[in-house]
Amino acid sequence: MRLITLSTDFQTQDGYVGAMKGVIWSILRDAQIADITHQIQPQNVLQGAFTLNRSLPYFPPETVHIAVVDPGVGTARRPIAARVGNFYVVGPDNGLFSLLFERFEPVEIYHLTNPAYWLADMSNVFHGRDIFAPSGAHLARGVPLAELGTPISDPVMLHLPVPEQIPGGWQGEVIQVDAFGSLGTNLDASHLPDGPAVVKIAGAEIRGISRTFGERPEGELVALIDSDHQLAVGVVNGNAAARLNAGPGTKVSVVSA
Amino acid sequence: MRLITLSTDFQTQDGYVGAMKGVIWSILRDAQIADITHQIQPQNVLQGAFTLNRSLPYFPPETVHIAVVDPGVGTARRPIAARVGNFYVVGPDNGLFSLLFERFEPVEIYHLTNPAYWLADMSNVFHGRDIFAPSGAHLARGVPLAELGTPISDPVMLHLPVPEQIPGGWQGEVIQVDAFGSLGTNLDASHLPDGPAVVKIAGAEIRGISRTFGERPEGELVALIDSDHQLAVGVVNGNAAARLNAGPGTKVSVVSA
Amino acid sequence: MRLITLSTDFQTQDGYVGAMKGVIWSILRDAQIADITHQIQPQNVLQGAFTLNRSLPYFPPETVHIAVVDPGVGTARRPIAARVGNFYVVGPDNGLFSLLFERFEPVEIYHLTNPAYWLADMSNVFHGRDIFAPSGAHLARGVPLAELGTPISDPVMLHLPVPEQIPGGWQGEVIQVDAFGSLGTNLDASHLPDGPAVVKIAGAEIRGISRTFGERPEGELVALIDSDHQLAVGVVNGNAAARLNAGPGTKVSVVSA
Repeated sequence: MRLITLSTDFQTQDGYVGAMKGVIWSILRDAQIADITHQIQPQNVLQGAFTLNRSLPYFPPETVHIAVVDPGVGTARRPIAARVGNFYVVGPDNGLFSLLFERFEPVEIYHLTNPAYWLADMSNVFHGRDIFAPSGAHLARGVPLAELGTPISDPVMLHLPVPEQIPGGWQGEVIQVDAFGSLGTNLDASHLPDGPAVVKIAGAEIRGISRTFGERPEGELVALIDSDHQLAVGVVNGNAAARLNAGPGTKVSVVSA
Repeated sequence: MRLITLSTDFQTQDGYVGAMKGVIWSILRDAQIADITHQIQPQNVLQGAFTLNRSLPYFPPETVHIAVVDPGVGTARRPIAARVGNFYVVGPDNGLFSLLFERFEPVEIYHLTNPAYWLADMSNVFHGRDIFAPSGAHLARGVPLAELGTPISDPVMLHLPVPEQIPGGWQGEVIQVDAFGSLGTNLDASHLPDGPAVVKIAGAEIRGISRTFGERPEGELVALIDSDHQLAVGVVNGNAAARLNAGPGTKVSVVSA
Repeated sequence: MRLITLSTDFQTQDGYVGAMKGVIWSILRDAQIADITHQIQPQNVLQGAFTLNRSLPYFPPETVHIAVVDPGVGTARRPIAARVGNFYVVGPDNGLFSLLFERFEPVEIYHLTNPAYWLADMSNVFHGRDIFAPSGAHLARGVPLAELGTPISDPVMLHLPVPEQIPGGWQGEVIQVDAFGSLGTNLDASHLPDGPAVVKIAGAEIRGISRTFGERPEGELVALIDSDHQLAVGVVNGNAAARLNAGPGTKVSVVSA
């Protein structure tokens, strides 16, 4: 039984995701389809890229991951499928997979140009149903990647901001906010000073790096290395994004205390 | 392995959907259960009808689709199951399936009256768990439709508004809004003029029918034939419902330019 | 094929749930993973406890239920797994399972102390991925509970408020609000008078106990015994929590009319 995952910004209420599942099972009746998320913020390709990067590598080899955050559907942006590490991704060429392409290079990427593997009744506005779901299902049932299209080597890549050295430490920025309001940054353990550290963000100072949330009193700010190995800022049992009015782009520095 | 889908307005946080899944697997251990959505707006039968119409026909033959948007639970409204095209639906007789009944007629509809296929500990307020989930599971394991109840021929039907001819074109209305804020109408390609078209909605005029979103600059209004073959109005990378303060009932006309 | 369910407050958009699913399938490729919910209000352990209590008992025997609402992750709070009735639960020892522990006692509870069944690359902030998902998957593939850790007998228990007798009846309180805005209380059929009843809540009086919602005109308040066998207050096709500005802790009394 082949495993296929779905990640979209479709939400579920309109039935778009349901249509994709139906298309997949109509092609590969014994596929196991897993939802990763359909709650990506509409058309937020970067958020989608982080979500895929955080979850796809944990799946078994040969899993086919279909992902659709696709503001450019039907335009010149290319539909693609790729072999990444030991798994496959299928979706739009708009940077959605670019964190994975960097992490697992070399990758083998194909422009989906073979309509034999698309739905016959093709629309210009719903490639999730008409191109990505059927191409992914055919890939999962064993069709070789090279059958689906033509190789490309210039996928669209997202470029994350790079931390800068400052007196006594590093300055980075918030690159993502999760559902708990925790602020993930582009800093990691390598940017921490050898001795005690101070993290500065949005006018607040946090003294010391904690092991986990909950180590400080409820309502206090806490800085820690999160489960993605990033420096993150949270509020114990609270929401740091709301408290600090911070989000992607907010500057964060870490310096010696 | 039989495929059973679930579509409800229950949201998931309360565990109502979880209870339904448990009931189904307790009856048919190797069922494959797929969520279509649990995010239908509470008690919005029409939204549910559109969602089912958009997704169910894509599933493999013999799939059993259980759907519950059920403001009249426990009242005189009938619980039903039906054979529609090559698949089954199970849920309340309140119009939720009526777009499918029209599209795939003739259909075979039964009033669920046989308590042998319900949960023993029956409530008046949660037929999803107590009638629809077990009836659907029994149907999926091979119990004939006729075993579950008695045939009926007068299901509740929803009646969508019908477009009207106006000088130079047609006037219809918005009938649904999706999660992206795109406005689906009761107009389709047959209502478009032979030459250049102008779409008028909520004081705005859109010149020309586009092939896809993204063909115009970000933030612009765009009119196109959507993946349901309807005329729809969107905003490139934006939300047309919010921009135009429009929703179901908003008048839309399409005339020659 | 072993059945594993997931219930969390993670929401889905960040990919945390996706990572857990990947971990489970990497350990037990033919597990059937079912989402119960990922929409528990962040860090609301009591809401999680109600949700689990409402859904888990309906699943087939031997199902492994992983649940994570875990404000104390990485602190002294213990990760646990337990045999409850004929099923298993895996998650934090913070009261999340305590309604089930009371309902199905005696239970067999183990502190998860055996890192052989955890992810190798262990974080302090995401035990859902690093401890609970792999421990649950190993349990589902047949590893005995006693292999995973050491027995404990003092789990954290939540204590629900107890109704009090008042002149002519009982006073209780709202203990949960569902997605429809219905108010579930700690009163049940045993607290109803023999004759006609009046329910008083937030300045409103409801005369009579209905069989179901929908028995009164749209927009009216209704009191009934709900699908959890609790006394609940709703608004026909509306939202009682919003209408009455009521929620957990709001006093509710039921007296003879």
